Amino acid sequence: MTKHVYLDNNATTMVAPEALEAMLPFYKERYGNASSMYSFGGLVAKDLDAARHRVAELLGAEFDYEITFTGCATESDNMAVRGLLSYYRNKKHIITSTVEHPAIISLCRQLEKEGYRVTYVPVDKNGVVDVNYLKESVDDDTALVSIMHANNETGVIMPVEEIGAFLKEKKIPFHVDGVQAAGKIPVDVNKINCDLYSISAHKFHGPKGVGALYVRKGTRMRPLMIGGHQEKGRRPGTENVAGIVGMGVAAKMAVENLEKESSLAALRDRLQKGILERVKTASVNGGDVLRTPNTTNISFEFIEGESILLYLDQKGIYVSTGSACSTGSLEPSHVLRAMDLPFSKIHGSIRFSLSRYTTEEEVDYVLQELPGVIQTLLEISPFWDNEKGEGKIME
Amino acid sequence: MTKHVYLDNNATTMVAPEALEAMLPFYKERYGNASSMYSFGGLVAKDLDAARHRVAELLGAEFDYEITFTGCATESDNMAVRGLLSYYRNKKHIITSTVEHPAIISLCRQLEKEGYRVTYVPVDKNGVVDVNYLKESVDDDTALVSIMHANNETGVIMPVEEIGAFLKEKKIPFHVDGVQAAGKIPVDVNKINCDLYSISAHKFHGPKGVGALYVRKGTRMRPLMIGGHQEKGRRPGTENVAGIVGMGVAAKMAVENLEKESSLAALRDRLQKGILERVKTASVNGGDVLRTPNTTNISFEFIEGESILLYLDQKGIYVSTGSACSTGSLEPSHVLRAMDLPFSKIHGSIRFSLSRYTTEEEVDYVLQELPGVIQTLLEISPFWDNEKGEGKIME
Repeated sequence: MTKHVYLDNNATTMVAPEALEAMLPFYKERYGNASSMYSFGGLVAKDLDAARHRVAELLGAEFDYEITFTGCATESDNMAVRGLLSYYRNKKHIITSTVEHPAIISLCRQLEKEGYRVTYVPVDKNGVVDVNYLKESVDDDTALVSIMHANNETGVIMPVEEIGAFLKEKKIPFHVDGVQAAGKIPVDVNKINCDLYSISAHKFHGPKGVGALYVRKGTRMRPLMIGGHQEKGRRPGTENVAGIVGMGVAAKMAVENLEKESSLAALRDRLQKGILERVKTASVNGGDVLRTPNTTNISFEFIEGESILLYLDQKGIYVSTGSACSTGSLEPSHVLRAMDLPFSKIHGSIRFSLSRYTTEEEVDYVLQELPGVIQTLLEISPFWDNEKGEGKIME
Repeated sequence: MTKHVYLDNNATTMVAPEALEAMLPFYKERYGNASSMYSFGGLVAKDLDAARHRVAELLGAEFDYEITFTGCATESDNMAVRGLLSYYRNKKHIITSTVEHPAIISLCRQLEKEGYRVTYVPVDKNGVVDVNYLKESVDDDTALVSIMHANNETGVIMPVEEIGAFLKEKKIPFHVDGVQAAGKIPVDVNKINCDLYSISAHKFHGPKGVGALYVRKGTRMRPLMIGGHQEKGRRPGTENVAGIVGMGVAAKMAVENLEKESSLAALRDRLQKGILERVKTASVNGGDVLRTPNTTNISFEFIEGESILLYLDQKGIYVSTGSACSTGSLEPSHVLRAMDLPFSKIHGSIRFSLSRYTTEEEVDYVLQELPGVIQTLLEISPFWDNEKGEGKIME
């Protein structure tokens, strides 16, 4: 039997069977438009409300109407940043970090071209945003701060509560990209004191094609798109009813499963410890600080991450060399570069991201197969001295 | 047995069982990220390509890469208009019509606030855009013309080929909102000579939450959102694989079923003729010109469309008082107003929109039930003289 060990859950996840089951009626008999006046549509609107409530609960939002459904987290991120900026037109300074997702960091680079000034707050060697640097960057012109809750490549959790408390006092709007946190660690937008929080359903066993943006009551912003009255005008377009319902079920299940978080961390630690024991060239990136329980980013020095990925692929093990969003680009990971890792470690980095569906047996299969793959690749690596059994010193 | 006669297919449609069947594997075992490097993801990318080809065929596009998948038609419309405008920054004039969907008309109203000059081309009494007026409105400052292919409320088909030929000569970018045309009438973007064409899957038996924008090779525009490299950077965000695959199947089926278009028109005409024969206060809006084969908009003078809708709802017949997008608003239809209909006709207007799943039996059921509903409502209407059997002349 062909093995199938999926350890790329930070890229996307399997849809929970319960979520899919809840979605199906909306593709079949309950296909009405939620905005229609007749009962066939109106009943669907109630299901949207229920999903909205579940997502609000996932984020600790006080009011359901603080949740706006979107088409993906990239849309949530763009809507948050553009929406705030177009309201506060006189302020031209944005603060973000060097390790954000492209949906924020590439957007900020574009905004620089449009006349904005952007501060990219650096991170320490573990990849944690430098809070003091951030605090010192704030000035009267600061329109917005956008910091991720957890990093997609390393799982490292950012000090968003400390940042939020500071910004609340300064009355500066705070957007948190929570795509890699929601469903993996407890999220409470009121403890974080953020004004906006972006999430994506397919990162926590909901369907692809649906995201959400938490917008705190009273937050002033403009929509990214203009059209019908849906989502109170915040996000026009016929509601993706099935997708939203699926997201709701996934949110509910995520809340219920957060209690099992520690067992997922134990499984991740078993994988990480096993790899470090078996592969002497391996080292963990961001391992000294708080991380999401499902993620470990490991560098296999002197060899190429892409080669590891392809060899593991042949054995039915699916991992990532960083962010799947960077596929097609041969640029080394901007996150690991920001952590000041040497190139030899960046190029050999692999992200293992588990889910609550990952089993001990799967982890053990990886531990059985991975060391041989690494050894094979070391033996053909120009950066490895086979006789001495150590890396070559390159000039 | 409770009847269920769905005649609101311009609001949304049933997902074709074949489309849903094709989607399911991507929610179950084939949940990989299309942007991943490993085979589990890469194979999914091929399914995206196949869907893109099918959508390209639906629109007569020459190259598959001219199709960009989006989250909905509102996004396609916003992306088209904003994307072009942000490229041609020195031009500040937009031409559209008075009968566009809110995704265009409300966007244009917003653009006016942002410093753009917008010409809203009027329509004749049948709701057809005045091409001469449009031609005369063009000047050196015109950045973009956006005209719908078919109207959502009346089904009236606009002379987009004539407009396209004119604009091509003038070298002015042309966006066509084809949401109500694609899948209902043959579409050929090369015959239309448009640069951009927006469509939505859920209007032709695909799923909600996925749209597309045709962008002619060589068209210069900027993306609406910034993020990862997906859709060649035109529309970042993890691809909604299941939705896109469903859209592809729906597009393929639409192409195959276009041949049956005439039988759908015959069914619509049977409904329309039957109503006119049975209800003497009924009149068709836009009935004298080319329409999509599935739509008829009928005014029942002296009574309220909302009341008709609710009475029909009780009988399991689902229709619309105009655009479902306008629900929650009591504003009379801007489309019928633009056609210069008297208020008594606008307020009593009902849109019947059929699909290829509509049966003769369903149409006959409507013909059986509707006259009684209209009679009941006329009897309690303050605008109807029961003794004389005619409308009261109001001052």
